[in-house]
Amino acid sequence: MKYYLGVDVGGTNIKAGVTDESGKIILKHSVKTNAGGTAQALADQITLLCREISKKANIPMKDICSVGVGIPGTVDSEKGIVIYANNLCIDGEPIGKMLEAGLQKPVSLANDASCAALGEFVGGSGKEFRSVVMVTLGTGVGGGIVLNGKLWDGFQCAGVEIGHMVIQNGGEKCTCGRNGCWEAYSSATALLRDTRRAMEQHPESLLHKVAGPSGKISAKTAFTAMYQGDQVAKSVVENYLWYLSEGIANIINIFAPEAVILGGGVCNEGDALLNPLKKLVYEKCYGGDRIRHADLRIARLGNDAGIVGAAMLHQA
Amino acid sequence: MKYYLGVDVGGTNIKAGVTDESGKIILKHSVKTNAGGTAQALADQITLLCREISKKANIPMKDICSVGVGIPGTVDSEKGIVIYANNLCIDGEPIGKMLEAGLQKPVSLANDASCAALGEFVGGSGKEFRSVVMVTLGTGVGGGIVLNGKLWDGFQCAGVEIGHMVIQNGGEKCTCGRNGCWEAYSSATALLRDTRRAMEQHPESLLHKVAGPSGKISAKTAFTAMYQGDQVAKSVVENYLWYLSEGIANIINIFAPEAVILGGGVCNEGDALLNPLKKLVYEKCYGGDRIRHADLRIARLGNDAGIVGAAMLHQA
Repeated sequence: MKYYLGVDVGGTNIKAGVTDESGKIILKHSVKTNAGGTAQALADQITLLCREISKKANIPMKDICSVGVGIPGTVDSEKGIVIYANNLCIDGEPIGKMLEAGLQKPVSLANDASCAALGEFVGGSGKEFRSVVMVTLGTGVGGGIVLNGKLWDGFQCAGVEIGHMVIQNGGEKCTCGRNGCWEAYSSATALLRDTRRAMEQHPESLLHKVAGPSGKISAKTAFTAMYQGDQVAKSVVENYLWYLSEGIANIINIFAPEAVILGGGVCNEGDALLNPLKKLVYEKCYGGDRIRHADLRIARLGNDAGIVGAAMLHQA
Repeated sequence: MKYYLGVDVGGTNIKAGVTDESGKIILKHSVKTNAGGTAQALADQITLLCREISKKANIPMKDICSVGVGIPGTVDSEKGIVIYANNLCIDGEPIGKMLEAGLQKPVSLANDASCAALGEFVGGSGKEFRSVVMVTLGTGVGGGIVLNGKLWDGFQCAGVEIGHMVIQNGGEKCTCGRNGCWEAYSSATALLRDTRRAMEQHPESLLHKVAGPSGKISAKTAFTAMYQGDQVAKSVVENYLWYLSEGIANIINIFAPEAVILGGGVCNEGDALLNPLKKLVYEKCYGGDRIRHADLRIARLGNDAGIVGAAMLHQA
């Protein structure tokens, strides 16, 4: 039996797991990221975590074929260098080489969103397809692309930035500097902004009751108030779904993938999100009903997708 | 020596040529498309054209390895069926099989824009790259994608529709039914529309003089008047370049390709188009100057790209 280690490095936590050849997680573990330290310190922390997992899973390091690492930023996969990862402060560092030295294994780096896409492709909602685009609706809108079974993460393997596709020229300011990016409308952050704006404009809305005395809102707030019959919340959700469908229809027109897989906390709404979204998306796809368009699905692996995809980088 | 036949079927003309292994055209010829007839009639016309070219080039059919055909529409490459091609009226017909019967050669079908991209990749402006996106600014905005040396034309090999990416939600009406598609701003058709609108609003503009007494305008009109110092024409061109750059920056963010190649008549403006466009595009690309972004180039093969790409379909 062959085993693989997958590591998903985040700004807050480092999650890692050992998988079998099919990408099935045998054992996983996570630790708080020692962010802000040196690249070597981070590499040491990852090395230690991998060794711990190997020990706990009772799979000796000699049975582990390779290690894959997902990085929240831009990496040069060929050279194993992190080019730019603002949450980790390790720009330009050869973390791949450091890990290879520490673990004595072949190490592959990739963008974390690309790893998540590969994870869903190998063992999640994309399992029966050959070509999928994964869209993660989180703080931003991230993306990963698998075409004909191969990860496409840009010519420098730096990852792809589908969230930074302008869908509303001159629209909402985006963190990237442009206006009107998809991310500025369809991220969880954007949904929070719109929920907040609606609350300011509508003191009568149920949104306030749902938020409670603390006024704390989440991506769930608008959905919950809508389920309770609030019209203001309904229009927040409808507006969110409209822009989300604009971007997804764009992605389908641009790639003609076999499936688009949606991930991120907003997807916890399940069919209440997916059914109206499908209706909007398919009306917008080029060629109408003459053409079979991409399946639209919700991701299945949740937080494990990044671990699985990282572990499977060797085959991508 | 191995030879290949490439056929570029258009609504007006069918262009075909015989190439060597490198995709170099040895001899080409074109005929008017007998549009509106049966699929068999079209297949017969293509078969005849191929035989003529083989004869004229003094390359016997037995030395020709395969035939590739670019179709202006949606095709099922695997089954050799034209699914939808509104200019040819041959929807759902197994034209691949008909051609194989007529020519006694393996025949591949693909979308014409995908063929043009492959042509530029093999023998044109994309020659030194591994991953290119070609954008053709014509009646519409067409696209072709080559990633890691392989044509990506969608999971059904039906072609990709990058022009039907909405960049201005709620904007100009597009022929596809949506509002604000890139095509509705960056096609030659859109440039003509904007030139015409500017002329209506500005009777004093030089645009009228450039258009002449007949009032006939082309994609060149606004550029020519701008070169002569006309401010109205300048703003038409600047507005066109802005939207063009929005879409190109989107494509770079989405794909991170090694190069974006621009084709179509508007590109005859050369550096007057390319230089300001580059400036706008690179300011918009995600990651700014930390990351090396795609090269931006003008296509080199012109009308031959489709023939070359079709001939090279066997390797894609």
